[in-house]
This record gives sequence, structure tokens and C-alpha cells, in this order.
Amino acid sequence: MTNNNPGASRAAYYEQIARQRMTPLWESLHNLVPKSPQPKARPAIWKYAQVRDLVMEAGSVISAEEAVRRVLVLENPGLPGKSSMTPNLYTGLQLILPGEIAPSHRHTQSALRFIVEGKGAWTAVNGERTTMHPGDFIITPSWTWHDHGNPSVEEGGEPVVWLDGLDIPLVAQMDAGFAENYPEATQPVSRPEGDSFARFGHNMVPVRHRVSDPTSPIFSYPYERSREALDALYRNGEFDEWDGVKLRYVNPATGGWPMPTIATFMQYLPKGFKGRTYRSTDATIYCVVEGKGTVKIGDDEFAFEPHDVFVAPSWAPVQLSASAESVLFSYSDRPVLAALNLLREERS
Amino acid sequence: MTNNNPGASRAAYYEQIARQRMTPLWESLHNLVPKSPQPKARPAIWKYAQVRDLVMEAGSVISAEEAVRRVLVLENPGLPGKSSMTPNLYTGLQLILPGEIAPSHRHTQSALRFIVEGKGAWTAVNGERTTMHPGDFIITPSWTWHDHGNPSVEEGGEPVVWLDGLDIPLVAQMDAGFAENYPEATQPVSRPEGDSFARFGHNMVPVRHRVSDPTSPIFSYPYERSREALDALYRNGEFDEWDGVKLRYVNPATGGWPMPTIATFMQYLPKGFKGRTYRSTDATIYCVVEGKGTVKIGDDEFAFEPHDVFVAPSWAPVQLSASAESVLFSYSDRPVLAALNLLREERS
Amino acid sequence: MTNNNPGASRAAYYEQIARQRMTPLWESLHNLVPKSPQPKARPAIWKYAQVRDLVMEAGSVISAEEAVRRVLVLENPGLPGKSSMTPNLYTGLQLILPGEIAPSHRHTQSALRFIVEGKGAWTAVNGERTTMHPGDFIITPSWTWHDHGNPSVEEGGEPVVWLDGLDIPLVAQMDAGFAENYPEATQPVSRPEGDSFARFGHNMVPVRHRVSDPTSPIFSYPYERSREALDALYRNGEFDEWDGVKLRYVNPATGGWPMPTIATFMQYLPKGFKGRTYRSTDATIYCVVEGKGTVKIGDDEFAFEPHDVFVAPSWAPVQLSASAESVLFSYSDRPVLAALNLLREERS
Amino acid sequence: MTNNNPGASRAAYYEQIARQRMTPLWESLHNLVPKSPQPKARPAIWKYAQVRDLVMEAGSVISAEEAVRRVLVLENPGLPGKSSMTPNLYTGLQLILPGEIAPSHRHTQSALRFIVEGKGAWTAVNGERTTMHPGDFIITPSWTWHDHGNPSVEEGGEPVVWLDGLDIPLVAQMDAGFAENYPEATQPVSRPEGDSFARFGHNMVPVRHRVSDPTSPIFSYPYERSREALDALYRNGEFDEWDGVKLRYVNPATGGWPMPTIATFMQYLPKGFKGRTYRSTDATIYCVVEGKGTVKIGDDEFAFEPHDVFVAPSWAPVQLSASAESVLFSYSDRPVLAALNLLREERS
Repeated sequence: MTNNNPGASRAAYYEQIARQRMTPLWESLHNLVPKSPQPKARPAIWKYAQVRDLVMEAGSVISAEEAVRRVLVLENPGLPGKSSMTPNLYTGLQLILPGEIAPSHRHTQSALRFIVEGKGAWTAVNGERTTMHPGDFIITPSWTWHDHGNPSVEEGGEPVVWLDGLDIPLVAQMDAGFAENYPEATQPVSRPEGDSFARFGHNMVPVRHRVSDPTSPIFSYPYERSREALDALYRNGEFDEWDGVKLRYVNPATGGWPMPTIATFMQYLPKGFKGRTYRSTDATIYCVVEGKGTVKIGDDEFAFEPHDVFVAPSWAPVQLSASAESVLFSYSDRPVLAALNLLREERS
Repeated sequence: MTNNNPGASRAAYYEQIARQRMTPLWESLHNLVPKSPQPKARPAIWKYAQVRDLVMEAGSVISAEEAVRRVLVLENPGLPGKSSMTPNLYTGLQLILPGEIAPSHRHTQSALRFIVEGKGAWTAVNGERTTMHPGDFIITPSWTWHDHGNPSVEEGGEPVVWLDGLDIPLVAQMDAGFAENYPEATQPVSRPEGDSFARFGHNMVPVRHRVSDPTSPIFSYPYERSREALDALYRNGEFDEWDGVKLRYVNPATGGWPMPTIATFMQYLPKGFKGRTYRSTDATIYCVVEGKGTVKIGDDEFAFEPHDVFVAPSWAPVQLSASAESVLFSYSDRPVLAALNLLREERS
Repeated sequence: MTNNNPGASRAAYYEQIARQRMTPLWESLHNLVPKSPQPKARPAIWKYAQVRDLVMEAGSVISAEEAVRRVLVLENPGLPGKSSMTPNLYTGLQLILPGEIAPSHRHTQSALRFIVEGKGAWTAVNGERTTMHPGDFIITPSWTWHDHGNPSVEEGGEPVVWLDGLDIPLVAQMDAGFAENYPEATQPVSRPEGDSFARFGHNMVPVRHRVSDPTSPIFSYPYERSREALDALYRNGEFDEWDGVKLRYVNPATGGWPMPTIATFMQYLPKGFKGRTYRSTDATIYCVVEGKGTVKIGDDEFAFEPHDVFVAPSWAPVQLSASAESVLFSYSDRPVLAALNLLREERS
Repeated sequence: MTNNNPGASRAAYYEQIARQRMTPLWESLHNLVPKSPQPKARPAIWKYAQVRDLVMEAGSVISAEEAVRRVLVLENPGLPGKSSMTPNLYTGLQLILPGEIAPSHRHTQSALRFIVEGKGAWTAVNGERTTMHPGDFIITPSWTWHDHGNPSVEEGGEPVVWLDGLDIPLVAQMDAGFAENYPEATQPVSRPEGDSFARFGHNMVPVRHRVSDPTSPIFSYPYERSREALDALYRNGEFDEWDGVKLRYVNPATGGWPMPTIATFMQYLPKGFKGRTYRSTDATIYCVVEGKGTVKIGDDEFAFEPHDVFVAPSWAPVQLSASAESVLFSYSDRPVLAALNLLREERS
């Protein structure tokens, strides 16, 4: 028997198998197994000068208490409605006003806080509060109670803005999200400020400490020290044509990343830096700390200034230039890609 | 000034921030950070008796050569249009007829082949071919050339059906898919059948072998030996009220999973088994090898028979019963959850 | 002031400091920090043909019960009085006669048993007995109760001789030896023979097994399978100019060594093999299983035949030749050297 | 036949087997496999007040150049002639005078330098010099070129004494010692002081750093920071009844020990501390930095003052007391015991 109309019969067959919740792989194979990554996320930048007023205005739109977390989510234009910056990572700008509390809760999502402007607010983790200063990198690890607060104006409080980086979309993809609210607005303070840093921050650890968790036992990495390290390395001649001077934050108890799903970096670009092109399968979000320059990401080019936030999707070529001495904080899903043996890099 | 219509002004504010590609977290926080996993994937079963004819009919709808891989994708009813069984994993039923070749390619997706019916077809990986028998578990690891073939009818070939398990949705989520076709239909055979098993399958490894890759250096785990192990353990009194007798496949060079993104298991349920309830954040796909029974997954209950395929989403309570001695193969995204510190389990 | 007799004053000074239990490093630095290893252990061979009668005669000199372990210790001629074959390892030949029991005890020393001749005796570890056959490699790991026995003549028992390999000198050096006797001659048998192999020997492990110990969960590696693996590899073209075909035994739950202090190997030399020269900082004891050949170790050359035992000290060049198809078992302190970052190798 | 004189015939048998370099295990089993550790090393103390003059006098007995390393070895009274403090570890007091150089060499032995008195001398490792101050802990890892020097009196040099801790006896036991002299007295300085600390000391590491070696990439751990960490912890309420406040030094790139064979600790005992009793299978050498107290080690009791050195052999019960606020540096072979699965501890 010859089939005079194979297209028609395929369509009929496709209908039949659809009733069994089956689809023909051969119609979708190309999309499912692409030759190279096809990210929907797009390169994008948020100019702090353009968004700062809106961030501040949020303070009059809703209270921290009502909002729980008063955050404007930066949403990648290629991922509309997803509250995502990249497939795995989320980015937001959080505002906390003097006298406010962002109440205590915990969730399986891992979070980083990178301080953009203002100082004196605090983050509490595991019974210890740390005071936030611009450039500080702070973590609130998976399933740890955490709350934030800001002293009143009388006590010297001022509006504080930080960048929130979380693995919300990743945890959603994994169907592994759990969350709980703490019965009080703030967790009890049981340890003085600096305690975890004293225990783990000095290249020493308590003799009976057992590593039971991949997250860092210190939760604040002050800018003062990161900046000092970058300066020293640059002075000492460290220099990479792609990266300038780039350090990654580590968990001092393991040498691994501070959190198991998010990599974090701080990098220095000297004035006049014109970096070479790099790409990798982790997607990276940058936050400018100091300086001025431009970044090419795929076919886009953005000028950057302090506090701007920009994103490089997976496998997009990235090239950094600096017209003034610049410092960039960045974070990515590199530990995830590495753990799954899916990390690829290319320097050209 | 008092705001007489806060809802209106919030709406106006939301429009303003939307122009900056920003959204208010406080409107979506609940969905983004749920109290517990809210999988879209649903419990489901594919009865082999109902789909077998359609699988066989695929042989006349398209040739293996044209299809590249002649597979019917089993699509989770909760994830329509996604070619996915769970958020991270894909399931298909592949048919290869006597005399056919599924041409050689490689991709970053990891794949397992679990043989459902028919024998004598082969899978080639790294220059070695392995003959497939029902119940065999075979891997074609990330970025390894692999092709499949079936001898002609004259040489004793018969239709062979296997279950394909891949991490296609996970790799898509990671934006980390790369693929290449081999210049020829089949890769050259450079090593005799059984070579990798001889090197690594006997609790010994070549003395100068260096582990450079998390994937297993053996790629075929014959059913004969898995079944023998299960039998021996049951005879020896091994028995778990949740699992019956359950073994996981390992990479003999590391003791880890055979592939870094997919866990695989084989389990034995004695006749009359009524298992207790278990749930975990990895989502599991089962393929029945032998026997008869029922499975409760959340609010659903399915009767199962040989070659049926069913799925338990993340955190859904699962309870197995067997009215006849049964053997189940299963695979899940457990290594992913574990690597990201997101694995949670509950036995009740 | 000039010193007219510096030698005398140094001597006086040395006496003074000696009273404070101090010595001048500069007089011993050369010996303490040598240019290259200066082993006291010497190459040596024990010809089984010469020692077999003495081993058998031990059966009438002392009973197994009185001896606890009826073993002739092979003592390196360079380490007299040390009961050592190498600085870290011990070698003995143990005889057990039909109807005898070597009573149950445990100690922190790790032990291997490599069966030389006779069959049917058993070793019990963790409540499981395994029957011993020539060429089998059996472990009795650190701090596990173990006993050995042999059926009576009526039950088919025959004299059985095995090579004992332990880390006795290493554990002594570490001041870490603990030992206990079991209250009965034999530990209770709680698991059928083959149980641990069924659980861990088939490239699968029980799903809830947690690795809490570096030692292998299987304790018998049958010769039949090791030999089959070597044969297959040689047939498949595996061949190394230094080693012939050489496999190392692994702990299937980790891919590491079966025990944390002793490496074990089995190697095949085809007829006519003339190996190239190799040396390394682990010291190796060989036991010939089959065949005939010669070995050059430093300036010594030994002819070997089945059951001969020979030793290559650290850093001594070793060169193997075989006039007949040969199989050699060997063990060394390689995991110790590797763990301490002191392993060096040279192939010339 | 009955044996009328079994003792005589055993003796004859022993002679016979001795000619084959074999000995009867049953005569030595008890000594070889002891019930618990039987260290030959004994508890001992070196009072700095008694030995300081002799250390200084060494400066006139021999020049640093002639001596290569002008060190008085502290020899455990239980290990005469072994140049050892414990079976695995060596202890010495090294003196370097203004204007002297201890020439560059490297060896597989790992070394620590703990500064006792004097300041301004330097140690060079990997092209970087670090200035030494009392209480600093400095490493010269296995197989790294290292040299020491002291500025001239004119440049402010003063006599400097430090404690040398090495694994010389361990490496000798392993037959794994290699050594080389550098062609010049000092290695070229290629990196400014503080460079390795800037790269690795601030809980960050260079982004492309790959861990290829278990030794710490920083080689100086300044006392200032260790002391600050101890103070902060004590102030914050950290206190252990056995240890007071005790930290271990870590390799910041791995969280492991700074060197693979030697553990190092710094501990604080408040005034009036009366510690509980502890023992373990690692043997520990202490060097008093500040304070005053007593230590009971087994049946011995010693009063200690600054710069005193004392030793606790394996498994000896140790109990510390402090009549003044005290700080103790200590080092042991704990990583070795742990790697070999031979570490046992007991707190009573």
C-alpha cells in the first residue's frame, strides 16, 4: 500500500498520539537539542540615574512592613512576567527607610545583598546582626532566618538601597521552594556583631567546627577589605587581559563558593582598560561600584556608571572597557553549571 | 496630602516602573517564594498496552534516518508543549526497526536508555558497541558520540523499544545546550564489546586511570546482574518498608551517580508488598520491568503492569503496592537537587 | 679573643646542649634531609619452593589456637628485628589446618589476605563468612572483628596458606594501635555468604547507604573475576610497556582504595614480556600467582615462580620480565604516600 | 611420636626459619598489635629560660652560612639519637643573627616557623619575602624554595629565634625525602611582601586560581590577626572546658590544614583556667606565646612560661591550667592520622 498523502496521515497520527499525551520528537528535536545555547534572556542595563527616583518613591507607595520586602524586581526584557534576570537568577533593588524592619523569615532560596547606597542598616542572620556599608557583600543563606532593619532618623538612620540577588527562578524550576515566617518581626540577637567574622574570617576556624553545610559561615564580606585586596594585586602587577584584576569570594571553611548556587566576584578595571572578549555558559549580573566605562554584550553596547546594573546571558560574548578606574561586583549561576558539568568557557 | 485612591496611584506607579522593566515584588512574593513546592507537573501514567501499537506504528510514519531519533515524547499533562515529563527531565519511547541506524551525534544533554522490549539492537559510545536486552540500563553521557543500530531481519534483528531519559529541560533551563552531528552515520568501532565493563565493571580499574569526568566509564549495566543483586538481597533479608529492596546504580570509578544530572534506581517489591508513604524534592519517572501493582501519587492512584511508565512530581507523596513480585526501574533529578543543597525527603 | 681549638669548644658546647636534650642540627642535616630516599629496606625474594615445607611444618610446631595467628613473618633483611617488609608494611605467610579456628579479634591495623594455596577455609568479617580460593583478595579492615576457620578433613578441609599484608609498622610509627579480643572464638554469622558482594559488587549500592568509612564494603574480590578482567583487557589490546596489563582494586562505594593505607593491584604479563623500568616512592610487595619470569630491583635480579614473594623498596628501579604468561598480585603503601603528598613516580 | 622437649624443637625450628628470613609471629604478636598505643616518646618540657643562652651561644659556635640552618634540635628523651620530638615530627630552635642568610634550598619535608623572639628577619617562599614578628606562624611548604635572612645591625637587624616544626621523621619513615640546593644563597624576589596574603588572605581568591596542591597559598599568618580573633571569641563568650578558646589555621583555598602533614593551632586560656582532660592519637608540640600556667601530661606535670616548649605524646592525657591569661601555639601530626583513618580522641 502506498500512502498518497503522507502529510495528512502524519497529522492524523499526531492527533492519535496526542490523545495519549505523546508528541513526535522528530518535529521538535532541533529546538530541544540546539547546536548552541539559545537564551531567551537578553542583554540589558538599568541606569541607576534613571531608576533611583522610582526606587525612592517606593518608600511612599508601600511600607516595608506591608511589603514584607520592599523591592523593585529588575525583569529581563526577554523573560517577561517571570520576575527573572536570567533563567536561574533574580535581581531586585530593595529600599529600607529609617526606622523600618523587613520582618524575619527563611526560605530555601539563597540570597545575596550587595549594598548600593546609604549605610547603617543591618541584616541579621543566625542571631548576629551586621551593619551594611556601600560595597559590602552580605549573604542570607538557604533556610536561615534573616531580617533587615534600619535605625530611626534620630539614631542616624538614612535610606539604604541594596541589590538583592537570589536563585528564585532556579529553585522554582527545581520545585524545591519552602518558606516560613518567624513568629516575631526580628529574630533574637544572640551574638555580637563581628562574631562569625572573628571565628572564620582570619584564615582560622574553631578547632571543633565541622562543615555540615556548603554555605559560608561568615555572612558579611566588607568592601573595605575587598577593595584593599584588589588594590594590592593591581599594585603588585596582577593583570588579566580579559578580567583586569578579578577575585571571587570564597567560603573560608571550604574554599568553595559562599553559597552553593550563586558565584560572586569583585573586579578592578584600571583607567583605560579595554578588555578582550569572553563568554561562558553561566549568566552574569553586574553591579557597578565605582567608575565609568562601557560593556559590549553580544550586539549591545552599554555605557555604565556607579550603581548601574547590567546582565550578560549565557554564552553572550562580553567585553569590558573602563574610561575611569572602575570596580564591578558581579554574580552568576556558575556553581550550578559547574556542579552539573555544564560549564563551558571561551576566551577570544 | 492624603491619597484618596491608593489603588489608583499604585497602578500608576506600577506603570511607571514597568517602563523601566521593573515590577513590584510585593505583588508576587507569595508566588515566587511559596511555602512548599507547587509543581505544575502532575502525576500520570502511560499504560504500555495502550501506547504500544502507536509506538510500533511510528515505524511506518517515519524512518529512523529521517527522524534522526524516532521517539514518541511522553509529555506531562501539567507541562503542555514543553516536551517534558518533569521540569528537569524528559521521557520518550524510541523504536528502532531491524536494519535501521539512528545516526551518530553528541550533545551536552545526558541520556539513559532503558530497554523495554526486543533485543539485539546496539548502542555505540566511545567506539564501543553494546548489545541491548530488556531491562538493561545504558548511558550515553554528555558530549559523547553515540549512535544506535539494529541488525537486519536476516541477521536476526527484531523491533526494539527503549525508554529514553534525558535532562533536556534542565539543560534548556541552564542555557547550556550544544550539539554536533558526526560526519558518518555510525562512529568507527575501535573497541570490542564488553571492553569498558572489563576495565571498570569488576571492582577494579586500570591502574593509570584518572577520573577527569563525573560520568561512569562503563555504559551498560546488564539487567541480568541487577536482577541477581536484588534477588540475593531479598533472599538475605534486606527489606525496607518504603522501598522494598532498592539499589542505585553507581559510577564504579567514584561511587557517585552514573551521570551528574540523573539518578537511576532498580527496585524489587515482593508479592503482597504494601509500601509506606515517601516524598522528596526530586521528581521520579518509573518504568515497570516485571510484575503488577498499584501506585498512589498524591491524590491519584494507578494500576501498573510491565512496561508502564509513571511519574511522581516533586514533593508528591508516593506509595507503592505489588500484587505480584515486581521490579521497577526509575530515574530522577536527585543529583541536581543534592548538588544544589535543595534535596529534602520525608518518610511517613 | 680567638678560639685556638674550635673543635674542642664545639665538643664542649655539644655536651652542654645535650644536657638540655638538644643536638646541633648542622651535624646531622645531611642525613635528616637526604638528596633522595635512602631506604634501609632491601630488595629480597622468598622462593616458595624453599619455604613451603617450613610453612607446613609450623602446623606441628604450634596450634592455631595457641598461636592466635599461625604466621611466619617475612622479615626484610635490611630491617632486622622489625617484623617488617618495608617501613610501613608487614608480610606473613599464614597456615590454617583443617578443623582449626583463628580466633576473632579486631585491631586498628588494616589487613589483606591473598590466598596462596588450598581452598575451603573461610574468613569472617562483619557477620559474614567468605570462602577462600587461590588468587582471591580478601580484606579485614581496620577495627572490624574478623576470624578465620577451616572445615575438618571430614568436611573436605585441606591446609590453606595465605599471604597476610598489614600496615603494622605504619600503625606503630603512628602510635595508633588499639586491639581487642572477641569474647568467643568466632563471631556470630548474621549474613549469608555473598551478601556484601550482592549489595556492593555489581556497580550498584543500596539506595540508603551512606559512606561513613573509607574502607570497602565488599571484603572479597574473587580471583575468577580479576583474572577474567585481565584476560579481556589483554585480548582487547590494552598493554603498557612498564606494567603489561595492570588493574587496581577499588572500593566500589567511593572509587578509592579498598583500605585507606594499602593499595592492591593485579597485573598480567604476556609471555615474552620485557618491561621498562619504573620507580616510585611507595614500596611494593609482590606475590606471584601464575607464571615464570625475572624481576630486576635496583642491583638485584630474581627469578620468580608461582607463590614467590618479593619486595621493591621505595625509589628502587623495578623491571619485570616474563618467560611464561604471568599474573602478579601486589600491594603497597601508595595511599599513604598520596595522602601525604609524598608520592613521586618515574618511568624511564 | 611425642615431642619430649617442645621448647628445644621450637628453638631449632626458629633457627631454621630465620635462615629464610622468617620469624614466628606468635612470639611477637602482643608487641606488634598492642591493646593501646605504646609511645616511646615521653612528655617533656624545654624551659626557654634555661636554654636561651645556649641558643644565643650557637651564634658564636657556628655561622649561619656554615651551618646552613643554625638550629638546636629538641630531642625527645624517649627517642634518643632520632632528632625527633615525636615519631613523626621534629622540633628545633633556629637562630639567625643580623646580617646573616640561611641559604635557599627545598625539600619534600614540610616546615613551619613559629617566631619566638626578635623581629625583622624574613623568610622567602615562592619569590616573596615576609617579615617575621613574634607570634607569627609561617610555612615553607614541601618542595618550595625557601631562604631566611636578617638585616644588618645598621639596618636595624636583631637576633631572631624561631621554632622550627618539620615532618622530618615522618618523611624518613616514608622513604620519601628529596632535597636540592638553590644555585644562589637567596632566591630572586619576584613579588612584593604581602602579595600572597592580598590574593588569598581576605576570604577571596583570584578567579582563575586552580587548587593543584594541598598546601596553603598564603605562607604567613600574622600574630596580630590570630590574637585579635582569639580575643573577639573570648569576649563573645566562646569557651570550651577542655580547650579554652582554640582555633586552627586553615588553607583559605580549601578549608583544610595549611600543610598536608602538620596541623597548627592557637589557643587562649583565660586567667584561672583549669582545663579538663583530653587525649588523642596525634602527638602535639606546644610553644607558649604569652602567660603562665601548668600542664599535666600523663604522670608528668610542668609549669610553663613564655617561649617554653613542651610535648604530649600520642594518647597521653593532657590537662592545661593557666594562672595568668595565656596563649599557646601548637602543632601536631593530626592530618596524617586523619588521612589514614587512625585518629581517635577522648575527652573526659
